Amino acid sequence: MKKIGVVDTTFARVDMGRYALDRLKACGTGFTIERRTVPGIKDLPVAVRKLFLAGADLCLVLGMPGKAEYDKVCAHEASTGLIFAGVLEAKPVVECFVFEGEANDAKSLEHLARRRAEEHAENAYALLFRPDDLTRRAGTGLRQGFEDAGAIRLAR
Amino acid sequence: MKKIGVVDTTFARVDMGRYALDRLKACGTGFTIERRTVPGIKDLPVAVRKLFLAGADLCLVLGMPGKAEYDKVCAHEASTGLIFAGVLEAKPVVECFVFEGEANDAKSLEHLARRRAEEHAENAYALLFRPDDLTRRAGTGLRQGFEDAGAIRLAR
Amino acid sequence: MKKIGVVDTTFARVDMGRYALDRLKACGTGFTIERRTVPGIKDLPVAVRKLFLAGADLCLVLGMPGKAEYDKVCAHEASTGLIFAGVLEAKPVVECFVFEGEANDAKSLEHLARRRAEEHAENAYALLFRPDDLTRRAGTGLRQGFEDAGAIRLAR
Amino acid sequence: MKKIGVVDTTFARVDMGRYALDRLKACGTGFTIERRTVPGIKDLPVAVRKLFLAGADLCLVLGMPGKAEYDKVCAHEASTGLIFAGVLEAKPVVECFVFEGEANDAKSLEHLARRRAEEHAENAYALLFRPDDLTRRAGTGLRQGFEDAGAIRLAR
Amino acid sequence: MKKIGVVDTTFARVDMGRYALDRLKACGTGFTIERRTVPGIKDLPVAVRKLFLAGADLCLVLGMPGKAEYDKVCAHEASTGLIFAGVLEAKPVVECFVFEGEANDAKSLEHLARRRAEEHAENAYALLFRPDDLTRRAGTGLRQGFEDAGAIRLAR
Repeated sequence: MKKIGVVDTTFARVDMGRYALDRLKACGTGFTIERRTVPGIKDLPVAVRKLFLAGADLCLVLGMPGKAEYDKVCAHEASTGLIFAGVLEAKPVVECFVFEGEANDAKSLEHLARRRAEEHAENAYALLFRPDDLTRRAGTGLRQGFEDAGAIRLAR
Repeated sequence: MKKIGVVDTTFARVDMGRYALDRLKACGTGFTIERRTVPGIKDLPVAVRKLFLAGADLCLVLGMPGKAEYDKVCAHEASTGLIFAGVLEAKPVVECFVFEGEANDAKSLEHLARRRAEEHAENAYALLFRPDDLTRRAGTGLRQGFEDAGAIRLAR
Repeated sequence: MKKIGVVDTTFARVDMGRYALDRLKACGTGFTIERRTVPGIKDLPVAVRKLFLAGADLCLVLGMPGKAEYDKVCAHEASTGLIFAGVLEAKPVVECFVFEGEANDAKSLEHLARRRAEEHAENAYALLFRPDDLTRRAGTGLRQGFEDAGAIRLAR
Repeated sequence: MKKIGVVDTTFARVDMGRYALDRLKACGTGFTIERRTVPGIKDLPVAVRKLFLAGADLCLVLGMPGKAEYDKVCAHEASTGLIFAGVLEAKPVVECFVFEGEANDAKSLEHLARRRAEEHAENAYALLFRPDDLTRRAGTGLRQGFEDAGAIRLAR
Repeated sequence: MKKIGVVDTTFARVDMGRYALDRLKACGTGFTIERRTVPGIKDLPVAVRKLFLAGADLCLVLGMPGKAEYDKVCAHEASTGLIFAGVLEAKPVVECFVFEGEANDAKSLEHLARRRAEEHAENAYALLFRPDDLTRRAGTGLRQGFEDAGAIRLAR
């Protein structure tokens, strides 16, 4: 039985954690989920390390940085810390961030956040249970939350 | 009995540490507080690690970077170090920074610094004693020091 | 017998991993290959650390960041994490990134990605099996994917 | 008996290390000083770690980055490394940098560098021997080398 | 007998490693040299860590980042990794980078790269064998590859 940690924030304006949980459960079985919520994205790396030390095999983290320049800096710091925590424990951290500026209105933002959370939940599941599915799709231009870019296929 | 470390700076122009201490004590019981003061925000990560090694379960750090471009770089370096210290010890570091440029006059700056310090003190308390309160408010657009952004709720 | 880890992404729009594998095998013998695929470049550092802990002597990682400003930040975070993972294990990580903006059309991008993947595969092989080949070419302005810049040779 | 490490550079154009040493000695007793000089600010973090491993309780580092954009990057890298070294050893690193561009002429630069070195020496002494002095001045807007900004005090 | 590691790249357009080796040998005796060559500057940190683990007491690394914005990012990542490797092992890493954009033509670039490599070789030697020479020149505005800036000396 695997354990998946899911961490989200009170800063985000969409309950991305809930969408991720629902999609994870729909993906299959063989795992339990531990959910944690922290104030902001900069609190995610510590929560991840704690979950890893408590037995999690993978963490899915979700956050929604704001529009300001400073929010981009915070996201950069959070990402750096998440990679550090993952490398330290040698366990995957699937980062799902949606920037408020990525959508033009509240409805699109909600839609984007939901879709990205769900698709990253599928990535998390694949990393743990279906690594060959990922390799089969290597270099195919997959995107999360937006239309896939697709593979560049040349007539040879 | 938990131990909370509170670290602030002589650089800040508002006694944010005092506001944080007062609010922490008002939040509840079950913890002791260790307060430290360092010259500037770049000294915070070491103070945090020292407090963790001395038994602190969480650190609340408070700082007020100046308006110059260089101050933003310092804040970035401090934040990176704080995340590193937190991940290393697997203990939460609640960062409360107020940039001097966030308010237009001294009075607003004092008000903002106080309110943010108090609200981050509440976050610190919740992380240690009421994690479910945070999860209940996941994705609801909470802010510290400013009006909450609120959750995006769609009519479906 | 050496072990080489090859990690690529589903985000990339060209199957760079395949080109790298083929070229590696054409370089010589004396090694086995473990291939992993992760969603995006920020997932590479953890995959690398895992492969190192599982016995890989070198990892070759391939990715294709997009055109947006944010993609550059992601590439920076990934690179920082890859260097961290390499230093931690004291094992080489050969990074092969192609930015979507480096080529003007799909065909050129495919060509660039293939050539760079192949030339970095050769670098990986040289690092493990022919370090003297690298020293012989020290300071000669080699490039991967583009024309070599060449050594500056002065008439003295 | 405490040990204080003082590290400066041959790159700096003012002998900040000398000013720091003199002021440290004037602050009080109970400590010995180890001085090291490295070529540039990016060599400071290693020197600090070495001094810590050799028994130093605190390091005071002094440097003078140039005016170019690249010098700012070097200062950022040095600062990041200094924070890393400090957190690793859980010992304070007092960083005293003066950017050449902070003053308009050589005389002002010399004056600024001297004053900042002396005031940071006082901070170093306080961190080791008089932590309560720092807490007493928490949030009072202290600056090093320039006029203090002062505390924001509101009529209530 | 000390051991000095020298690492350069096939990316550089000048054989800086050779210039460094020649100058090192001219500096004195009491050390052996291990030379390694890697593809690019981002491969330097791992090579350094490997040399340290194999007994090197100091590493001198040489690289020549290109003119593009991306090359500056790579140099920043390499420098960060080099500082990390040095702090981890508590051994000096003397970084000698020449940016292609620092000189206007090939001849000047070759001259600059040679002179900087030689002067950093002297720094490396001094760090290991003549630390007092460095302290004697503290705050005197030394530069490598360019004219020294010199100390600011005030009439008092």
